[in-house]
Amino acid sequence: MKINQDLGDLTLDLVNISSVSQDEKAIADLVQESLSNLNHLTVTRIANSVVAQTNFGNSKRVVIAGHLDTVPANNNFPGKKTDTDITGLGSVDMKSGIAVALKLAHELTKSNFDITYLFYESEEIETKFNGLELITKQNKDLLNCDFAILMEPTNGIIEVGCQGSLRFEVSAKGNRAHSARWWNGENAIHALSPILEVINSYESREPVIDGYKFREGLQAVKINGGVAGNVVPDLVTMTINHRFAPDTTAKVAEENMRKLFNNFDFKLMDAASAAPTGLNNELIKNFVQAIATPIAPKFGWTDVARFAAAGIPAINFGPGDPNLAHHPSEAVKIKQIEDVYSSLKKWLSN
Amino acid sequence: MKINQDLGDLTLDLVNISSVSQDEKAIADLVQESLSNLNHLTVTRIANSVVAQTNFGNSKRVVIAGHLDTVPANNNFPGKKTDTDITGLGSVDMKSGIAVALKLAHELTKSNFDITYLFYESEEIETKFNGLELITKQNKDLLNCDFAILMEPTNGIIEVGCQGSLRFEVSAKGNRAHSARWWNGENAIHALSPILEVINSYESREPVIDGYKFREGLQAVKINGGVAGNVVPDLVTMTINHRFAPDTTAKVAEENMRKLFNNFDFKLMDAASAAPTGLNNELIKNFVQAIATPIAPKFGWTDVARFAAAGIPAINFGPGDPNLAHHPSEAVKIKQIEDVYSSLKKWLSN
Repeated sequence: MKINQDLGDLTLDLVNISSVSQDEKAIADLVQESLSNLNHLTVTRIANSVVAQTNFGNSKRVVIAGHLDTVPANNNFPGKKTDTDITGLGSVDMKSGIAVALKLAHELTKSNFDITYLFYESEEIETKFNGLELITKQNKDLLNCDFAILMEPTNGIIEVGCQGSLRFEVSAKGNRAHSARWWNGENAIHALSPILEVINSYESREPVIDGYKFREGLQAVKINGGVAGNVVPDLVTMTINHRFAPDTTAKVAEENMRKLFNNFDFKLMDAASAAPTGLNNELIKNFVQAIATPIAPKFGWTDVARFAAAGIPAINFGPGDPNLAHHPSEAVKIKQIEDVYSSLKKWLSN
Repeated sequence: MKINQDLGDLTLDLVNISSVSQDEKAIADLVQESLSNLNHLTVTRIANSVVAQTNFGNSKRVVIAGHLDTVPANNNFPGKKTDTDITGLGSVDMKSGIAVALKLAHELTKSNFDITYLFYESEEIETKFNGLELITKQNKDLLNCDFAILMEPTNGIIEVGCQGSLRFEVSAKGNRAHSARWWNGENAIHALSPILEVINSYESREPVIDGYKFREGLQAVKINGGVAGNVVPDLVTMTINHRFAPDTTAKVAEENMRKLFNNFDFKLMDAASAAPTGLNNELIKNFVQAIATPIAPKFGWTDVARFAAAGIPAINFGPGDPNLAHHPSEAVKIKQIEDVYSSLKKWLSN
């Protein structure tokens, strides 16, 4: 992989390396290879995550982190370059951020900070697969820092905090029978209506925190049921994703959901805490002042929550419109990739 | 496989050979092996179906047909023998019928009919996989006969005609988005309610035909949707099975269903015609008189429809309560297997 090219072209190259969650070996190999011969970096590989650290001897260390995986393609792979944009799966979330971090890692042979670049796997799926989770288990000192920047798509502005995320299963049950003698069974699919009613009558809470309005959500993300074409099905399982604002703990969010679905079987699959905005923290205040962009709340869950939980201030700052993340028409402005790169380079070089 | 044992034990042996649709090789091999050395039978193998024919030189030929496949297991494999019953997957539908047919094939070295025994594959899934379909394509003369007995479970009585079956897909559509910014998408799972409403408000028609009351049905049998744990899904597909009475053609049944679901995408997957009761046919009248059991309508689709479509009178007559077919607690009375066997043996030997 050629790092010494336009950020747009580098992003396109990265988009065109397929790296759906749990299939990141190819991209991790290329990232590792591109960094391993640089004298100013110490490179560590853990599964399909790559950690590259400077040791300039500065008093403060900054983490710049980006995940290598994408959601599955939706007629948007491979990507394309237009006059102004890079389009395609992962262009926004977050191959363009990876391009910025890779270029910084190559070019910044000195800085007023020590820097740890984290290129990690499986951020888009359950927490237990997350590359940072694995790094924490195998060598958690690699994550030590005073401040962390997550290169999540923020449209080139700073997005503070993040919402938490719960994933749980709710099921409808019945009794199997031959579908030709359906009156001997109870159809679990037919029994879905009350679950849908709960979801469709849910009203999203929109709390204002430190002056920024968050927006909660409740979305069914998977549904699966049925045995055979002539059997009345006895089970349908629906996976539901709840997003909650930083004023709510994962524990309280779970209690709320158990209450909402108390008439149904409920199985918690995955819980990720929210993160506070951090706007009362000195390092974040200084970064916000130096970068001089607008600020907004982060609706999506990001690994800022992981750093926040470890007492490390963290923010989201990356190219790409977050509204287009996971969208079939994912596309990022080349100009925005360059702007984020320039801002970070200037801040790290001063 | 030992044929010369009690019909209950033979049924249990057959139950314990796993033969879920499209996995019938093992059972077909054993059936073929058990028949291939008998001098009074000519055995033909087509894929995983076995055809064994007598050539006694009689003027009339009877088909005795049973399918070798079962639906998937539901904590009911392997089977068991109690004092009175054989329990387990396929004991009713239709390993007990297969046991009867196998024993007749071995023992009837003479008869007042010529007999074609059909042991065929993949009856429980789409028509295109049905073993009789394949035999029709490769050597349809093997199905020639004057009268066909399908050993479908009828609780030891004669069940006349059969209902038709349509399988079709109906889908709910939406737009993908990141589930953390769900307001940019449209959730296809959340949009299922109107489809369920159509199904749940359907009223089953119960026409009386030749004095027997049939009972139509509309059952969702499969549901599937969702892309990933953090993506608002853009598609959910529901497979629906409609059972219709013999007074309705498959074409009219399809028109009815297209009307019922005219607000949704509709895709026909599979259509199997119904069969008339045949009670005005002389051969059926004679069989009914000779067997001297009660008569009932057949709610399930069976391959009598295939013979009826070819102008061949056909009825259902086999051991096992059809209400237990495809049920987790499938079980058949050993006494009933023996009764069906005795009735058929007596009729064929006279």
